[in-house]
Amino acid sequence: MINIASTNDLYSSYREKMQEIADVKFSSAVLQWDQETYLPEKGAATRGRQIATLSEIAHRLFTDKGLGDLLNELVQRNDIDDRGKRNVVLTLEDYNKNKKYSPSFVREMSEQVNKTFYVWLEARKNNSFAVMQKELSRLVELKREETHILGYQHHPYDALLNEFEKGCTVVLVDKLFDDLKAPLKNLLDKIISKPQVDDAFLHQHFDKNAQWKLGLEVLELMGYDFKAGRQDISEHPFTINFNSKDVRVTTRIDEMDFTSMLWSCIHEGGHALYEQGLPEEEYGLPLGEACSFSIHESQSRLWENCIGRSHEFCGALLPRLKNHFPEQLNRVTDKEFYKAINKVQPSLIRTEADELTYHFHIMIRYELEKGLLDGSLETHDIPAYWNEKYSENLDVTVPDDKQGCLQDIHWSHGSFGYFPTYSLGSFYAVQLFESARTAIQGLADDVSTLSFNRLLIWLQQCVYQHGRYYTSEELCNKYTGRPLDSSYFVEYLSRKYAAIYP
Amino acid sequence: MINIASTNDLYSSYREKMQEIADVKFSSAVLQWDQETYLPEKGAATRGRQIATLSEIAHRLFTDKGLGDLLNELVQRNDIDDRGKRNVVLTLEDYNKNKKYSPSFVREMSEQVNKTFYVWLEARKNNSFAVMQKELSRLVELKREETHILGYQHHPYDALLNEFEKGCTVVLVDKLFDDLKAPLKNLLDKIISKPQVDDAFLHQHFDKNAQWKLGLEVLELMGYDFKAGRQDISEHPFTINFNSKDVRVTTRIDEMDFTSMLWSCIHEGGHALYEQGLPEEEYGLPLGEACSFSIHESQSRLWENCIGRSHEFCGALLPRLKNHFPEQLNRVTDKEFYKAINKVQPSLIRTEADELTYHFHIMIRYELEKGLLDGSLETHDIPAYWNEKYSENLDVTVPDDKQGCLQDIHWSHGSFGYFPTYSLGSFYAVQLFESARTAIQGLADDVSTLSFNRLLIWLQQCVYQHGRYYTSEELCNKYTGRPLDSSYFVEYLSRKYAAIYP
Repeated sequence: MINIASTNDLYSSYREKMQEIADVKFSSAVLQWDQETYLPEKGAATRGRQIATLSEIAHRLFTDKGLGDLLNELVQRNDIDDRGKRNVVLTLEDYNKNKKYSPSFVREMSEQVNKTFYVWLEARKNNSFAVMQKELSRLVELKREETHILGYQHHPYDALLNEFEKGCTVVLVDKLFDDLKAPLKNLLDKIISKPQVDDAFLHQHFDKNAQWKLGLEVLELMGYDFKAGRQDISEHPFTINFNSKDVRVTTRIDEMDFTSMLWSCIHEGGHALYEQGLPEEEYGLPLGEACSFSIHESQSRLWENCIGRSHEFCGALLPRLKNHFPEQLNRVTDKEFYKAINKVQPSLIRTEADELTYHFHIMIRYELEKGLLDGSLETHDIPAYWNEKYSENLDVTVPDDKQGCLQDIHWSHGSFGYFPTYSLGSFYAVQLFESARTAIQGLADDVSTLSFNRLLIWLQQCVYQHGRYYTSEELCNKYTGRPLDSSYFVEYLSRKYAAIYP
Repeated sequence: MINIASTNDLYSSYREKMQEIADVKFSSAVLQWDQETYLPEKGAATRGRQIATLSEIAHRLFTDKGLGDLLNELVQRNDIDDRGKRNVVLTLEDYNKNKKYSPSFVREMSEQVNKTFYVWLEARKNNSFAVMQKELSRLVELKREETHILGYQHHPYDALLNEFEKGCTVVLVDKLFDDLKAPLKNLLDKIISKPQVDDAFLHQHFDKNAQWKLGLEVLELMGYDFKAGRQDISEHPFTINFNSKDVRVTTRIDEMDFTSMLWSCIHEGGHALYEQGLPEEEYGLPLGEACSFSIHESQSRLWENCIGRSHEFCGALLPRLKNHFPEQLNRVTDKEFYKAINKVQPSLIRTEADELTYHFHIMIRYELEKGLLDGSLETHDIPAYWNEKYSENLDVTVPDDKQGCLQDIHWSHGSFGYFPTYSLGSFYAVQLFESARTAIQGLADDVSTLSFNRLLIWLQQCVYQHGRYYTSEELCNKYTGRPLDSSYFVEYLSRKYAAIYP
């Protein structure tokens, strides 16, 4: 029957099925957003099963034989445009991967993630990793099982890395970090030997409401569309999308450090601009989705670091900060502010780390996950391993689990293999930003007047509009003229810190 | 196959299916809650289709032949306890009714409701019924179609009334309102001939934040569990539940009238207490659901009117109000406050109406809906009909659509047949409260110390715990000793107003 149908009809029917799946997935995303922002305490248990049911239904719909038949027919058709073709090819890949999971495994994973998320909250409250160890163990077991389901050639962790960055392997990431470790370490040693930056003025009391308003103001300046999104408070900042016209961000506020809130707003804002820029008409299809985790991260890092920690941005932002916090900041100069915002200091919390030491945080997590997946580490080893590596790599003493291995939400979400994309994202960010600077004459002037229109148009054209049309590597090649090259990143940091730590 | 399975296994499998359906339905409810509280403007279109997809999936699951077979088998089993039996019987009734709807009709209705809801918001913004007339017309057409799908004996409206109150018909409601109209009109005429109550002190400026806090304080006093719920702001106050441990209320704040916010909090709080009191273990099953719309409304009215507008409550509340609004209320006496809160005045807005004139608002809507359904009225007739009936029944002039036929959310939600349950609910409330007063010695003293523990236990025992085990009539008979009798209501009002308007 299917063979005699017109390609147009087949494509419409494929699109309809995909949009139905998207409706279910994004409904689940609304439930998750609510869970992390407004859900009353006692509602948690049932919310867990509601999310699990939606996951199971989405999985059922996405592994339906009818969809498979449709895809296998469509992929052979030639009278289909280029973008349509790419949608079909990518969906078929996803379909074949998804078919590997049984519905019961999907439900078990979803329920276990939910449990683990709640014990993580509990563990943080009690400042004790032990509180979550049992549930995390069960989750790691499921992830090990998943590596077998997905299959891998050399290392079980490859199966999970590949989930977040297509084609990514332990061999590749090992090489990347091995190459980077020495130059970063040298740079860090050099910085530590110089006179240190004074950022004491950042650590005063900054009123919660004023911080909240400031965050909204900066998102607005960046071009984030509040008619297609909103900001709320959550335990851990995140961006979540229900379609390109409803992309929400969250933040958290520490009254003793407004920079934590503000640069997290800029970071999430970068993610959100990407999602708001994805083609609306491709809702539910691969071209309506972001390219990859690393390219997503490149968008947040580009804003957070290349823009947000630049001389020009800091200079333009300071007068606005002084409006909100005159008492605390009136005597601060542009230069002092810029230096303080770029202060390098080995520290405990990944999300608050400077651009340099950040990657040591990632390397530690990467090694740890690798060990958990190949069985050379078990969950009960985590705190000791963590603390030892922090001392070894960053020369800091971890005082407790909350400031140590309990700081990230990722494991409680089952996201093993995610962390390396943060480093990849930082490297892509710098390389893409170099291209933007070449393409947009006077971009620095735009930044110093907080005018981001031309940059947004460039990002729309080079990144947002494509969805998953190109892979990370293809996108990078096409718009920077060469493959990912971490020497851009080393060069960028060296230049920056040579000026700050003369 | 099914016949040789044990009843226990069959029941478990039935329960599992029902809980899956509940997960989908309540997920949709979360999306609706979000839509009316926090959804960004541009997200509306896609949200509509997401909700429609979930409705369709829930419908598909609930009309699945497997479930039907299971129910038809279970209903014949005798080794099943009384509550289990009742679940099965009620589910089979619902199942057979649901089977009448085609999936395409369900989706069309859901999408049309969504569209109509948004044009209603738009129409309110523009203060023009014309803005929504076209979409409402389409919705009314669908409702007419629905009356044929559901079937009816005498009047098409019967089919819709029956959706909200089992067994309810035009004949019954006509009789009820015919009996009531004269005594209420007489009482109103008598009141109007007396010296009027001065409530000017209620119409001052009352700060938004203080009102918000006051609302939360009163919900807390009533026994509403904030760990199993929360309050937010929406265009129109409502209660919504995602399970008995997540029951949310919303309110709206008018700075020139705190009583509007406060009695709406008490009203929604009454609904919410009922939902929070439903048996958790019956999640997804009829016994985990409220008895009926009218009994639901009896719970909100009992709190709003029988408690909230009582002498004792007003006396106990006033000192707390004075804490929040010392300037505005310091010179007000208990008696003045009680009278002001019970002031009778024919007016424009149903939700702000006093206990007496309220029912004229309902009668007008009832007649209007009846006409729309039998075709003697069309949607373009609504504003003129509305305005004429308000003048005729309440002697008030409707100045514009926002204060007229655009005031209620119900039609934009497709809820035709809902309004009469508000009157039924008020009558049940008074009759139930009379029983509570007999059963709980010194209940008035409880109220004057704002101690609601004993009342809550009584409500738990007589109403909450049963879910849908009894029908409205059965429940009323069992706990008040007789069928619904509106003369309790007339008697209650006559007594109250004789004292206020001597």
